[in-house]
Amino acid sequence: MINAYEKMKSNPPLVHSITNYVTVNDVANIILAAGGAPLMADDVSEVEEIVTISSALYINIGTLNSRTVGAMVKAGEKANKLNIPVILDPVGLGASELRNKTVKTLLEKVKFSLIKGNISEIKALATNAKNLGGVDVQEEDIVGEENLKDNIEFLKRLAQSLKTVIVATGAIDIVSDGERTALIRNGNMMMSKITGTGCMLGSLIACYCGSNREDIFNSALISLVIMGLAGEEASEKCISRKEGSGSFRVYLIDSIGMIDRKKIEEGAKVEFY
Amino acid sequence: MINAYEKMKSNPPLVHSITNYVTVNDVANIILAAGGAPLMADDVSEVEEIVTISSALYINIGTLNSRTVGAMVKAGEKANKLNIPVILDPVGLGASELRNKTVKTLLEKVKFSLIKGNISEIKALATNAKNLGGVDVQEEDIVGEENLKDNIEFLKRLAQSLKTVIVATGAIDIVSDGERTALIRNGNMMMSKITGTGCMLGSLIACYCGSNREDIFNSALISLVIMGLAGEEASEKCISRKEGSGSFRVYLIDSIGMIDRKKIEEGAKVEFY
Amino acid sequence: MINAYEKMKSNPPLVHSITNYVTVNDVANIILAAGGAPLMADDVSEVEEIVTISSALYINIGTLNSRTVGAMVKAGEKANKLNIPVILDPVGLGASELRNKTVKTLLEKVKFSLIKGNISEIKALATNAKNLGGVDVQEEDIVGEENLKDNIEFLKRLAQSLKTVIVATGAIDIVSDGERTALIRNGNMMMSKITGTGCMLGSLIACYCGSNREDIFNSALISLVIMGLAGEEASEKCISRKEGSGSFRVYLIDSIGMIDRKKIEEGAKVEFY
Repeated sequence: MINAYEKMKSNPPLVHSITNYVTVNDVANIILAAGGAPLMADDVSEVEEIVTISSALYINIGTLNSRTVGAMVKAGEKANKLNIPVILDPVGLGASELRNKTVKTLLEKVKFSLIKGNISEIKALATNAKNLGGVDVQEEDIVGEENLKDNIEFLKRLAQSLKTVIVATGAIDIVSDGERTALIRNGNMMMSKITGTGCMLGSLIACYCGSNREDIFNSALISLVIMGLAGEEASEKCISRKEGSGSFRVYLIDSIGMIDRKKIEEGAKVEFY
Repeated sequence: MINAYEKMKSNPPLVHSITNYVTVNDVANIILAAGGAPLMADDVSEVEEIVTISSALYINIGTLNSRTVGAMVKAGEKANKLNIPVILDPVGLGASELRNKTVKTLLEKVKFSLIKGNISEIKALATNAKNLGGVDVQEEDIVGEENLKDNIEFLKRLAQSLKTVIVATGAIDIVSDGERTALIRNGNMMMSKITGTGCMLGSLIACYCGSNREDIFNSALISLVIMGLAGEEASEKCISRKEGSGSFRVYLIDSIGMIDRKKIEEGAKVEFY
Repeated sequence: MINAYEKMKSNPPLVHSITNYVTVNDVANIILAAGGAPLMADDVSEVEEIVTISSALYINIGTLNSRTVGAMVKAGEKANKLNIPVILDPVGLGASELRNKTVKTLLEKVKFSLIKGNISEIKALATNAKNLGGVDVQEEDIVGEENLKDNIEFLKRLAQSLKTVIVATGAIDIVSDGERTALIRNGNMMMSKITGTGCMLGSLIACYCGSNREDIFNSALISLVIMGLAGEEASEKCISRKEGSGSFRVYLIDSIGMIDRKKIEEGAKVEFY
C-alpha cells in the first residue's frame, strides 16, 4: 500500500474527469492536493484526445445528461485501447432508469479497472434494483459488524463476476478484487455532512490508479486510508474549534495535501480477509 | 415558526434541485448543513423519477439553457401530481427574453408553493418589465422604511394574484401568503459580497417546505431567520478575525449547520403585518 | 496602473462570464470580492441581451462544449458592436482539435481586447501546435531568467500580430500590448496547487477592463499585481498556520477583497521593458 503512495509522489498523474457539476471543483482541488493534475473535458468531440494525454480516466454519473453519456463511452473505449485505468463512480445508481441504462451501457462497452460506490449503489450495481433514497446510503444497507461477513462475501463475488476491483464505502469501507479483500475503518460521520466526499475519494483513487496501473487494489486501499485519515484530522479540528461543515470541507482538502508517510503508517486501520 | 424548525429536524427532507452551475455546490452543502439530503438531476428523461423519491423540488433559473427548461416543466408537473412542494427562484428574471418566457411557461404549467427573489426579480415577476442590472437588486428597488408599506401591499396582492407565497429579499426581507405578511430584519450587507446567498436561501426554504408542506409561510419565515442569523454570526467572525468574503462563505455554512433553537428564539427579528 | 485601480472602485463593472463549470463559483466570488458584479449566462438565445447590460465579457474555454461555442461567438460579436471589452482565456488550448478550432473561430469573428493564458497556451495560440500536458504549463515552457528576453520578444510580436494585449502567466507574468511590455514578479508556487487561479485572474482582468475600457494594458497590470499580492498574503497565512490548499483558496479570496492602495504600492514588483 505504501508503495502505491510513494509511486504517485514520484510519478504524478494527469487525471481526466468526466464528472458532475455539483462537486467538480472539489474533485479538481483534491487531485491537485494529492499531487496530480486535473483535466475536465466532457464534449464527445474532444474526449479521445484528452484521454490520450492522461494517466487515468474518472467517470462519475452524478449529474448525468444525454450529452455526456456518449462522451463517457467514447472516452472509456479510448482509455481501454491505451491501457489507461478507468474508474466508475455510479452516483445515484438505482434512482432512475437513465442511470441504470447508462451504467449498463458503460459496463458493456468499457472495461473498468475499479468501480466505487456507497453500499446502496454497489447493491444497485449488482441487482439493478430500485434504490429509493437518492444518492445517500439506505438505512437497511449500512455496513455494520452484524452483516459484515455477508457484505464481504457479496463484494468478493461481485468483483469476480464483473472482473474488476469493487470499493464499497460506508462506516466501514471495503475493497475487494475478488481474491484479496480489505476493510478500512478510518473516517467518520462528519464526512457525510458535506457534499462531494464520495467524488473526492473517487478522484483520489483515479490519481493513485494513474500512477500504479498494475496495482489497482493497493491504489484503492491507500486512497481509502488517506481520505479516512483526512476526515479524522479535519473533524478533530472542527470539534476543537467549534466549527461546522463549511470549515470541515476546507480542512479536509488541507489534510489530503498535508498527509505524509508517518501519518499513514500510524493511522491506517486496515484488516485483510 | 419554531414548529417548522423542529419538524424538519425530526423529518429530514430529500430536496431535488434543478439549479445553476455557479452555486450548486453551496446549495448542496446548505441542504446538508440544514439536515436534509440534496439530489441534483436535470436531464428531462430522469427528473420525474427523481421527483418521485423527493420531499421538495427547488427550481432555480440562474444558468438557464434550452436543455434544462423542459426538465424544469416536467419535474414541476410531476411534483404537482404528487403534492410535493415546488419552489421557484427566478434568478435574473427581467434580464432576458429567455428568462421571461421560461418563467411564463413555468407559471402556466406548474403550481408553485412559493416564489422567492430579490425585490427586482419579484417586480419583474409582476410586471414582466426589463430589469437592467443583472441578477443583483436595482438601486431604485431597495426596500427601505420609506417605501416599506407600498412594498408590503404590492407583495400581498401579488401573492393573492398568483395564489402562492412570495418572498422578496433585501435589507429587509418580506414574506406574504396574501393574508399574513412578515418582515424579517436579520442578516447584513456582507451576504451580498459572495455569490449564492440567494440560492442557498432558496434551497433552505425548499428543505423546510419539504418537511412542512402544509405550512409554507412558516417554512419561509424560519428559513429567512436562519439565513439572516447565520449571516450575522459569520459576519461578526470575519470582522473580529479581519477576514474577508472567502472566509465569510465558510462561516456562513458553518453557522447554518450549528444554529439551534435558542439562537433562533433570541435572535429572530420578525414583525407581522 | 493605480488609476485603473481607483477607477474600478468608483465605477464597478457588471462582468458577463461564459466560463467553465469547474471554477465558475470562484470566478463569481472573485468578481464580487474585487467590487464588481458577476453574471453567468451561456445560452445562445440570451447572451446578446446579457452582454448589452454588461461592462465586460469574459470567455473561458475550460469545459467547452458544442452548445456553448455558438454562445461565445454571438456574445463576442455583440460586445464588439457595443464597444464592450472582450477577454479570452483559452484554457487547455492545444490539447484538442475542438479547442484549437474554437479559438480559431473566435479569433476570426471576435475582436479581443486581451488574451490571457499560461505560457504554453499562449504558445499554442501562436503556433496552433499540440500542447501535450493538459491545462498546466509544460516544463520546457517555464519562463525563467535565461529565456526571458526571448519570451518578451515573442509576446510583443504576438500582441502586434493579433492586435490585442497578451498576458502570459507563470513564475514571472508578462503583459504586452505590442509597444509596452511589463514583467510582474508577484505571486508564488502555492497558486498552482489549487484549481482556478488562472480563471480568477481572467475574471479580475475582465473587471478592470470593464471599468477602464480605454486602458486595457494597465487593467491587466493591476490585475496581475493584485492576484500576485493576494497569493503572497494567502500563502504566508497558510505557512504560519500550517494549513494547506483548502485554506489557501479561502484566504486568496479574502485577500483579493481586502487589498488596498497601500498594499499595492508597497508590494507591486513590476518592471517595464
